[in-house]
Amino acid sequence: MKRLRYAMVGGGQGAFIGAVHRKAIALDGQIDLVAGALSSSADKAKASGRELGLADDRNHGSWEALLADELKRPAGERIDFVSIVTPNHMHYPVALAFAQAGIHVVCDKPLVHTSEQAQHLAAAVEKSRTVFGVTYNYTGYPMVREARDLVRKGAIGEVRKVIVEYNQGWLATKLEGGDNKQADWRTDPARSGMAGAIGDIGSHAENLAATVTGLELESICADLTTFVPGRQLDDDGNLLLRYTNGARGVLIASQIEVGCENDFRLRVFGSTGTLDWRQEDPNYLVHSPIDGPRRILTRGSPWLGEAAKLATRLPTGHPEAFIEAFANVYLGVAAHIRALQAGKNPDPLTADYPTLADGARGVRFIEKTVQSAGSTQKWTRL
Amino acid sequence: MKRLRYAMVGGGQGAFIGAVHRKAIALDGQIDLVAGALSSSADKAKASGRELGLADDRNHGSWEALLADELKRPAGERIDFVSIVTPNHMHYPVALAFAQAGIHVVCDKPLVHTSEQAQHLAAAVEKSRTVFGVTYNYTGYPMVREARDLVRKGAIGEVRKVIVEYNQGWLATKLEGGDNKQADWRTDPARSGMAGAIGDIGSHAENLAATVTGLELESICADLTTFVPGRQLDDDGNLLLRYTNGARGVLIASQIEVGCENDFRLRVFGSTGTLDWRQEDPNYLVHSPIDGPRRILTRGSPWLGEAAKLATRLPTGHPEAFIEAFANVYLGVAAHIRALQAGKNPDPLTADYPTLADGARGVRFIEKTVQSAGSTQKWTRL
Amino acid sequence: MKRLRYAMVGGGQGAFIGAVHRKAIALDGQIDLVAGALSSSADKAKASGRELGLADDRNHGSWEALLADELKRPAGERIDFVSIVTPNHMHYPVALAFAQAGIHVVCDKPLVHTSEQAQHLAAAVEKSRTVFGVTYNYTGYPMVREARDLVRKGAIGEVRKVIVEYNQGWLATKLEGGDNKQADWRTDPARSGMAGAIGDIGSHAENLAATVTGLELESICADLTTFVPGRQLDDDGNLLLRYTNGARGVLIASQIEVGCENDFRLRVFGSTGTLDWRQEDPNYLVHSPIDGPRRILTRGSPWLGEAAKLATRLPTGHPEAFIEAFANVYLGVAAHIRALQAGKNPDPLTADYPTLADGARGVRFIEKTVQSAGSTQKWTRL
Amino acid sequence: MKRLRYAMVGGGQGAFIGAVHRKAIALDGQIDLVAGALSSSADKAKASGRELGLADDRNHGSWEALLADELKRPAGERIDFVSIVTPNHMHYPVALAFAQAGIHVVCDKPLVHTSEQAQHLAAAVEKSRTVFGVTYNYTGYPMVREARDLVRKGAIGEVRKVIVEYNQGWLATKLEGGDNKQADWRTDPARSGMAGAIGDIGSHAENLAATVTGLELESICADLTTFVPGRQLDDDGNLLLRYTNGARGVLIASQIEVGCENDFRLRVFGSTGTLDWRQEDPNYLVHSPIDGPRRILTRGSPWLGEAAKLATRLPTGHPEAFIEAFANVYLGVAAHIRALQAGKNPDPLTADYPTLADGARGVRFIEKTVQSAGSTQKWTRL
Repeated sequence: MKRLRYAMVGGGQGAFIGAVHRKAIALDGQIDLVAGALSSSADKAKASGRELGLADDRNHGSWEALLADELKRPAGERIDFVSIVTPNHMHYPVALAFAQAGIHVVCDKPLVHTSEQAQHLAAAVEKSRTVFGVTYNYTGYPMVREARDLVRKGAIGEVRKVIVEYNQGWLATKLEGGDNKQADWRTDPARSGMAGAIGDIGSHAENLAATVTGLELESICADLTTFVPGRQLDDDGNLLLRYTNGARGVLIASQIEVGCENDFRLRVFGSTGTLDWRQEDPNYLVHSPIDGPRRILTRGSPWLGEAAKLATRLPTGHPEAFIEAFANVYLGVAAHIRALQAGKNPDPLTADYPTLADGARGVRFIEKTVQSAGSTQKWTRL
Repeated sequence: MKRLRYAMVGGGQGAFIGAVHRKAIALDGQIDLVAGALSSSADKAKASGRELGLADDRNHGSWEALLADELKRPAGERIDFVSIVTPNHMHYPVALAFAQAGIHVVCDKPLVHTSEQAQHLAAAVEKSRTVFGVTYNYTGYPMVREARDLVRKGAIGEVRKVIVEYNQGWLATKLEGGDNKQADWRTDPARSGMAGAIGDIGSHAENLAATVTGLELESICADLTTFVPGRQLDDDGNLLLRYTNGARGVLIASQIEVGCENDFRLRVFGSTGTLDWRQEDPNYLVHSPIDGPRRILTRGSPWLGEAAKLATRLPTGHPEAFIEAFANVYLGVAAHIRALQAGKNPDPLTADYPTLADGARGVRFIEKTVQSAGSTQKWTRL
Repeated sequence: MKRLRYAMVGGGQGAFIGAVHRKAIALDGQIDLVAGALSSSADKAKASGRELGLADDRNHGSWEALLADELKRPAGERIDFVSIVTPNHMHYPVALAFAQAGIHVVCDKPLVHTSEQAQHLAAAVEKSRTVFGVTYNYTGYPMVREARDLVRKGAIGEVRKVIVEYNQGWLATKLEGGDNKQADWRTDPARSGMAGAIGDIGSHAENLAATVTGLELESICADLTTFVPGRQLDDDGNLLLRYTNGARGVLIASQIEVGCENDFRLRVFGSTGTLDWRQEDPNYLVHSPIDGPRRILTRGSPWLGEAAKLATRLPTGHPEAFIEAFANVYLGVAAHIRALQAGKNPDPLTADYPTLADGARGVRFIEKTVQSAGSTQKWTRL
Repeated sequence: MKRLRYAMVGGGQGAFIGAVHRKAIALDGQIDLVAGALSSSADKAKASGRELGLADDRNHGSWEALLADELKRPAGERIDFVSIVTPNHMHYPVALAFAQAGIHVVCDKPLVHTSEQAQHLAAAVEKSRTVFGVTYNYTGYPMVREARDLVRKGAIGEVRKVIVEYNQGWLATKLEGGDNKQADWRTDPARSGMAGAIGDIGSHAENLAATVTGLELESICADLTTFVPGRQLDDDGNLLLRYTNGARGVLIASQIEVGCENDFRLRVFGSTGTLDWRQEDPNYLVHSPIDGPRRILTRGSPWLGEAAKLATRLPTGHPEAFIEAFANVYLGVAAHIRALQAGKNPDPLTADYPTLADGARGVRFIEKTVQSAGSTQKWTRL
C-alpha cells in the first residue's frame, strides 16, 4: 500500500490537538508528515517543524508559504493532503485556499464560524473535487460504527429518542487569561466562534447523534449559560431536540461539571431496543433488546459488523482508545484519496469519515442553538 | 419503643405498591397493620384483608367504613395513621377525610390531581394539625440523605446544575387494555391525572432534585410526547430547568426507553464538586471534589453524616435497597407521630420524611410541565 | 396462609446478626416472634425481650428455660421453630436440645465446631424428623438461585473451574480486646472455633460454590495466615481446590483486605459459558456464553427460571438486597414446616434452604482447611 | 530529539504481536523501522518487508543475514536496536547473537525457555554492555506506574497480600491444529516452552505483581491443568504465593475461562490501603485507604506521581490503552539508548522498562511453577 504524505497547518509547540493528530496518523505507518506551517508565529512554526524532523525547505513560517511551495513541487513530491489543526478561526481561510488549489483537506471541527463560510467552502470543494474530511474523531471508534450499523440494520426498530451528553469539568473555574493556551482560545469569540461549550463539544454531540441515528433535526430549544464570571462564551448548554421522524432528544454539553473528564455518552432508544455507548469506556456497546437480557458488545468480537471489524486493530480485551479512533478517521480519508489516485470509486466501507456536509451541518447547529438560546428563547427550526 | 398501628387504604389483591408499603412498614417491627379497606371493591377488599390476617371487625369494604369505624373506637385502640396506596385519583378524597378527622396520613405520590386540591388538603391538615407524609420513597435512601447533607454543608460549593433522569422502558409497548393492572391505571387520565410518565416518575425526579439541592424552580421548558399509539398520556418527557439561584437543569422522565429498568439518577454539579447517585446502585454516592480524585462514599461508612447513619441498618458491603428506603420514610413519619404523642417537638433528624409541601409542589410541577409542553410550547414560570 | 411463630436464642442488645434475622423474618408478614432467650446474660436477655415487645412469660433468661417453657405449652401456642443466632460455640448445645425435643431449628453458620458434633446433631435431627435450616443466607439471593438453575440446566456446559472469593477488610487492625463485640468473639477460638476468616466467611464461600455448582470437593491445598499481631486465629486464607469431576478452583477468604467491604464473588467457568455474581451488586448475574456476547441477567426479568422468580418481590430495577435474601432462607424453612404441618411433602421449589448437610459439610471443610494449612502443608483429601 | 532506527525479527504476515510492536513504536514519531528479517520463511520475510516499505537491501530473509548486514554498515547507518517478536523458541538464539554483536535488544516475553539460557544471555549482555528490554508491556501503563509509585511511597503501608489474575477464554476449545497460527505455536512445547497459559500470561502476572510490589517470591504451590482434550500444555494455572517479607498471594492464569477477554487484574493489599487495577479499564487505579473512602485515580490527573505523568499523552477522560502502554516500554528503552549514545547515565524516570533481570526471573518462575505442579505437588522454593 502506497504511503501518503501530508502537511500540517497549526499544531506547533504548546498546542494540544496537533500532536494527537500526528500520533494518530503515524500509528499505522501509512502516512508520513513531510511539510508544515505549524504555527501562526513564523519563528515558532519553524522551531516546531525542526523538532518534528521536517526538512528545512518544507518547514514554513506561514500556511501561505506552505501552499505556494507545494504548488511549485512536481506531483510526485507534493503532499497528498493537508491537515488543519489551528484554532477555529483559521479553519476557513486555510481550508478554502487549499481546496481551491485542489489539495485534499482534513480540517478540525467545528468547521468554520458561519453557515455562509460553510457554503463558500462547499462550493470550492465541489468545484475542485477534493476530498474533505472533518475530524469528528469520536465517529472513528469501532463501537460507534457498530452502533450506526445496528441502527441501520433495524436492530432497535424505529428510533424514538436520543440522549447525548458531553460532560466536562475542566472549565469550572476561570482558566483563561493565564497560562492555559487551550482555555484561552476556546473561550475567546474571535478565535473560537460564537459559542463556547456548544461549539467545542456540543458539536461533537450533534455529530455523534446524527452519525449513529441518521436522523435529521427538525427543531431545537436551547438554554445556554455562562457560569464562570468574566467568561465571554457559554460554558454550559442544554437542549431539547425534535427530529423530523418524530423522535425526541436531549443534548447536554457542559464544561463546568466538576469531576467530569471527557464523559461523552450516547443513548439511542428505539421501538425494539436501546444502544448505549460511553467514550470513556469505548470498547463496549451496550445493547438492550426488548425481548431479552442486556448484551455487552465488545470491540473485536466475531459477531460484530464489518464496519466495526475494519476499524479494529487488537483482539477483544486489549483495549483500543482515543488515538486509534482518531487514526480511523484519517484512514478513511486516506482510503478515499487512494481510490481517487487509482481512478476508482471509493468504497464506503473503507472511505468512512465525517465529511464537509457533517461540518456544515454542525455549524448550522451551533448557529441555531445560539439563536434559540438568545433573544427568542424558544423552539427554533433547523 | 411503643409500637404504632396503622390502617391501609388500597393495596389489595393484584396491586403492586401496597405490598411494598406493608413490607417496608413490617421490616423494623415497630408498626403493625391492624385495619384496612384494601380495595375499591368491597369483596376484594375483604378477601385481601383476610389474607393479611386482619380481624374481621377491622377489615372493611370501603374507606368510608374504615374511617367511621376508627372514629368510633377508643383512643387506645385507634390507628395511629392511615396509609393511602390507592391509584392517584383516590388520594384526594381519602386523605382529606382522614386529615379532617384528625388522623395522621401517609399518602402515595403524586399527591392529588390539581393544585386546587392540594391547597384544600393543606388547609385541612393545617387545621387538624395532623402529620402528613408523602411517599417519595427514594428520599429514604441513606446516600440520598448523605447527598442532601453534603450540599447543605457546602461540600460542593454553590449548585450550578442539576441533571436528573428517570429512565424506564416497561411502557415501550401498549400494555394497557390487557391484563396489566399497573399499565392500565397509570395510563388512564381519570385515575392517573393529567400526566403519564411525568406524573408517575417525573414527580419523583422533581422531588429528588429538590430534596437534595434545596433549590427552587423558577421556570421550566417541557417537551412531552406519547410514543405508543393509542396511549392517552405522555410516556416520555424532557425538561429544561431554571432555578431561582441561577442554576440550570435537565429533567428526563421516560417509560419508553427499552431496557431501562428503574434507572433513576441524580447528578448535582456545584462550583467545587459534584455528586452522582443512581437508584439501581443505591449504596454508593460518588463525590468528585474539584481538587482531588473521585471518592466513592458507601453506605455504612464512619465518615458519613448523621442522617445517612440513622437511615442505615447494615454494615458496608451488606447492601440495603428499595424496601429499606421506603421503610425509612415510614420511620420518619412514625418518629413525628411519636413525638406528638409524647408532647414533644419532632427531631428533624429522625422525623425526616417528605411532607405535604413536597406533595403540593410536585402537583404544581406536573401542572406547569403539562402547560409548558402544551399549546404554549415555551418557558413557563413556576 | 397460616402465620408461623418462632423463638430466638441469642441476638440481644449489642448483637449484630440477630436483628438482621428478625428484620428478614418480619419482612413478609408471615412469621411472628413470640418468645426468646436473647442473651447468655439473663438480665440482658430479658431487657432485650422487653424492647422487642415479648410477653413476660415468654421472655426467658436462658435457652434452657425457653425450651422447658415451650414444651409445657399446648401445641396451638407453641413456637413453630427456634432461630439460633448466638456465637458459634453455643450452636451445638442449643440446636441439639431443641432438635431432640422435636422443635424445628434454624441455626446460623458455621454450624458447629467439629464434624463429630455435626454427626451427633444429624443423628438427633434424623431421629426427631425436625426441619433444620442453616442460614447460609447468600444462597437466598434470587440471582444465586438463577445461577444454580443455569448450571443444572447445562447452560454453561460442564463446570471446569470455580473462583470464589470473599474479601473483607474490617479486621485489618486489631479490633478485638476493645469495644467491638463482633471482632471479639469472631477472633476467639473458644467461641468462634478452630478458624477465623475461613470459618466466618470462607464457609460461606464453600457453601455458595457448592450450592451453585453442585460439585463435590476432592481435595484442597490451603494457606492460612494471621497478619494482625496478637490475633489468635487466621485472618486470611487462600485455597486451591480440586473437585471430583476434575474441575479446579480457587477460594479466597480474607478479613484484612483493606477497603473491601463485603466483596463476595463467585465465578463458575464451564465448557460453554461462564457465570459471574457479586454480592455487593446482587441483582445481576453475568452470563458469558461461548458463542455470543455477554448477557446481564437482572432479577425480576421474565426470562429467568422459576427459582429466581419465586425468590423475587420487586420488579427489575427496584433493587432487593441482603435482608430479602435472608428472608428467602426463612421462607424456605417456613414452606417446609407448613408442608409438614399439612401432612404434605415439601415442594423443593418453595422449601428451598440450606440444610444440615450443608452445615456439616461446611464444618468438615473448615477442619480440612486447617489441617492442610497446618503441619502437613500439602494437598488434603476431603 | 534524535530519531532512532530499529530492525525487527519476526512479526511478518500472519503474525499478531509484531504489528502491535510496530504501531507502538511508530506512535510517537521518534523511532523508525529501517530493516528486518520478518519471518523464518525467507519468502514471507521479504514479502512482509516490502509491504512495510523496507528498502530492498535491508529486507532480509533470515535474522543471520540481517545481523551480518548491520555489522557491515557504518555506525551512522546502523540500527540502534533490534526488536525480537518471534515465537518464544527463537528468542534465545537471536537475542544472544545480537547482544554478543553489541546491538541493543528488545525481546518479547517469556524471555527464553530455561534459566540456563537466561544466564548465558545475561552474561553476554553484561559483557557487551548492551541495553536489553523485555516487553512486559503491561508495566507501561501509566496507572501501573502510579501503583508502583504508591507502594514505594508507602501509601498502602506494608504489603500483606497480592491477588493477581489473568483470565482469558480464547483457548476454551481446541483451536490449535487448524488455521489459528496464534493457538498453534502457543500450545506447542517446541515453540512455546514448557508451559502454556502459565508461560504466555502467567508470566505477565508474575511480572506485574513483582513490578508493582517490589516483593520477592519465597515459595509457590501450583496447580496446572489441561482442560481441552488433546492439548499438550497447561491451559489453566492457579498458584498460592509466599513472599520473603511474609506477604501471601494468589496467582491465577487461565485461557479456558469462557467469556474472559483479557481480564488481567492486580490487587495489592497493604496494612493501610489497597490498590486495584484492571487492564481492561486501564486509565483508572482504585485506591482504598484504611481511613477514608475509596478514591478513583485517573490517568492524567494533576495529583499523580511523576512516572505516571511521564507515561501519559492525553488529558483525563481521553482514554489511552494497550498500544500506548506498549509504546511506553519502547520509549523507556529508547531513553536508555539515547543516554548511552550521549555518554550519560540513564535517568531512571525516563529509562523505565522491564529488563533482562525481569525476563530471567520470569523464566525461573515458569520452571518452578511447572515443578511445583508436577510430581512434587507441593510448596516449592524459588
